[in-house]
Amino acid sequence: MNICIVGLGLIGGSFALALRKHSLAERIYGVDASPRNAAKALELGLVDEVVEFEKATEVADIVALATPVDTIPQLAIKLLNHIEKSQIVLDMGSTKEELCEIISLHPHRNRFVATHPMWGTEYSGPEAAVEGAFRGCNVVLCEVEKSDAEAVATVEGLFRTIGMSVMEMSAEKHDLHAAYVSHISHITSFILATTVLEKERESETILNLAGGGFESTVRLAKSSTDMWLPIFRQNKYNILDVLREYIHQLEIFRKALERDNSEELRRIILRANEIRKILK
Amino acid sequence: MNICIVGLGLIGGSFALALRKHSLAERIYGVDASPRNAAKALELGLVDEVVEFEKATEVADIVALATPVDTIPQLAIKLLNHIEKSQIVLDMGSTKEELCEIISLHPHRNRFVATHPMWGTEYSGPEAAVEGAFRGCNVVLCEVEKSDAEAVATVEGLFRTIGMSVMEMSAEKHDLHAAYVSHISHITSFILATTVLEKERESETILNLAGGGFESTVRLAKSSTDMWLPIFRQNKYNILDVLREYIHQLEIFRKALERDNSEELRRIILRANEIRKILK
Repeated sequence: MNICIVGLGLIGGSFALALRKHSLAERIYGVDASPRNAAKALELGLVDEVVEFEKATEVADIVALATPVDTIPQLAIKLLNHIEKSQIVLDMGSTKEELCEIISLHPHRNRFVATHPMWGTEYSGPEAAVEGAFRGCNVVLCEVEKSDAEAVATVEGLFRTIGMSVMEMSAEKHDLHAAYVSHISHITSFILATTVLEKERESETILNLAGGGFESTVRLAKSSTDMWLPIFRQNKYNILDVLREYIHQLEIFRKALERDNSEELRRIILRANEIRKILK
Repeated sequence: MNICIVGLGLIGGSFALALRKHSLAERIYGVDASPRNAAKALELGLVDEVVEFEKATEVADIVALATPVDTIPQLAIKLLNHIEKSQIVLDMGSTKEELCEIISLHPHRNRFVATHPMWGTEYSGPEAAVEGAFRGCNVVLCEVEKSDAEAVATVEGLFRTIGMSVMEMSAEKHDLHAAYVSHISHITSFILATTVLEKERESETILNLAGGGFESTVRLAKSSTDMWLPIFRQNKYNILDVLREYIHQLEIFRKALERDNSEELRRIILRANEIRKILK
C-alpha cells in the first residue's frame, strides 16, 4: 500500500514517521506547498518522494491531508474529484464541522474518512516531526456513517497500529469538545504570553524566575499562527462561548480578590481542584 | 550542623531530601502543625526527628520556614525572639514584601535570610516531596543587606550545593515579578479548570479528548488552596494589576474573533510567539 501525505509539518511529518516505523506503507509520498518544507521532509527521510498535489491520487492508495484546517475542505474536494473506488482520502485536522459540511454531498463522500488525532506539540514544520507521536492518544473519527465501512476499518487499523485508541462522534460534538479541551488552552497561553511580554519588560528576569509552572502554562504560546488562526476562525462560535465563560469566571475571581472575599476564592480553587479527578 | 524544617510539605519535604542527599545536615528535625503530616514525614524518612515548634531553636543551627505564606511572618518573629547570635532563620515562601516588612525592625533581623526557591509542583503534603527538586532552578534572596553577610553566605552555600543559582533583589521587585511569572499562571489554570468543569459536563469526554496541551495548561489547577490562597492575598495588588491586563488582552482577542479581524488575531499570536525567545 502506498500512502501520500499532504502537508509535511508537525502532524503530517510525525504521521509519516509512525507509518514507516510500523511498516504500514510500501512507499510514502509527500506533498507540501512550500518547496523548502518538501525538500526538508525528503532530507529528513520523512517521505520517500515528493510529488505535486495533482499526482497524489495517481501514486497513492490512501491520501492523508495534514494541512492547516482552512485549506482542507477544498483540497478534500479536489482529491475526491479524482479518486477511484478503491482509494481513500482522510484528513487529520482539528476542526470537523466545516469540512464535513463542504464534502457532505460529494458523490465520493463515502471514500473520505474525517479524523482528528488528539496529539500535538507547540512546534511546527518538518523538523518538528517526532517518532512515537500519537502513541497512547485518542483519535476521533467523525460522521463514520457517511464513509464506507471498509474505508473506516482501514483508517482505524492504521491508527490502532500506531498506538491510538479510536473514538467516534458527530462533527458538531467534536468541535464543541475540542473548543473546551484544546482550543481554549491555546488562547489562554497566547494571552498569558502577550500579557507577560507587555508588562514584564525585563525578559532576563522572566527567564531566570520562571519555574516549571509558568513554562507549562505558556508553552502553547509558541504554537504556529498558520495552524491556529484557521482553527479559531472555523470553530469561532464554540470558542466564543467558552471564551465568554472563561472571562466571566476570571471576573468573579478578580472581584473576590479585590473585596478580600477569601471564602469565594477558596470555593473557586476547591472547585478547580476537581480537575484532579479527571486528569491522571 | 543541625537543621530544623518547619512545614513538612512539598517544599519543606523536598528541601529535607536535598539536604540529606548532599549531607548538609548532621541531623534534620521537622515541625508540622498537622500530627498526621509530621508522622508521615518521619515515616518517609524526610526528617530524623519530629519536634514541637518551640524546640526548633533549641535543637537546630538553622531553622527553615516552609509553611503557607500567611503563617511565615509570625513564625519568623517567634523564632527570632529565641535565637542565639550564631543561629540562622530562613524562609522559603512565595511572597516577600509582607514578611520583610513585619520583621524589618526586629533586633535579630540580621539573623534572618528571606528566600524564594523558584521550584514547585502541583502536589502538596509530605508525600509530594521529591528527590532532585530545586536542582537547576533559581533561588531569589531578598533584602540581603539586612542580613549578616556570614548568614547569607551560609544560606547561599546550602542552595548552591543542592544545585540552585542565587539571585538577589528587593522584596518589592520580587513580588511584582512573581505575580507575572508564577502567580498569574496559577490563576489562569484554576479558572480554565472551573470553566471546563462548569460547561463540559461529560468528564469522560474531557479525559479522552484532552491532549498534552490541555493537561499542561491546566495542571496547576490541582494546586493546594492552603498554599495558594495566602499567596494571592499577600500579593493582592500586584496580582490584580496583572489580572486586569490579562482580562483586557483576552477581550481584545475575543472582539477580534467576533469581528473576524484576522489581521488582529494574527498580530496577537505573532506577539505571543515572541515568548519563544525567552523560554528555552
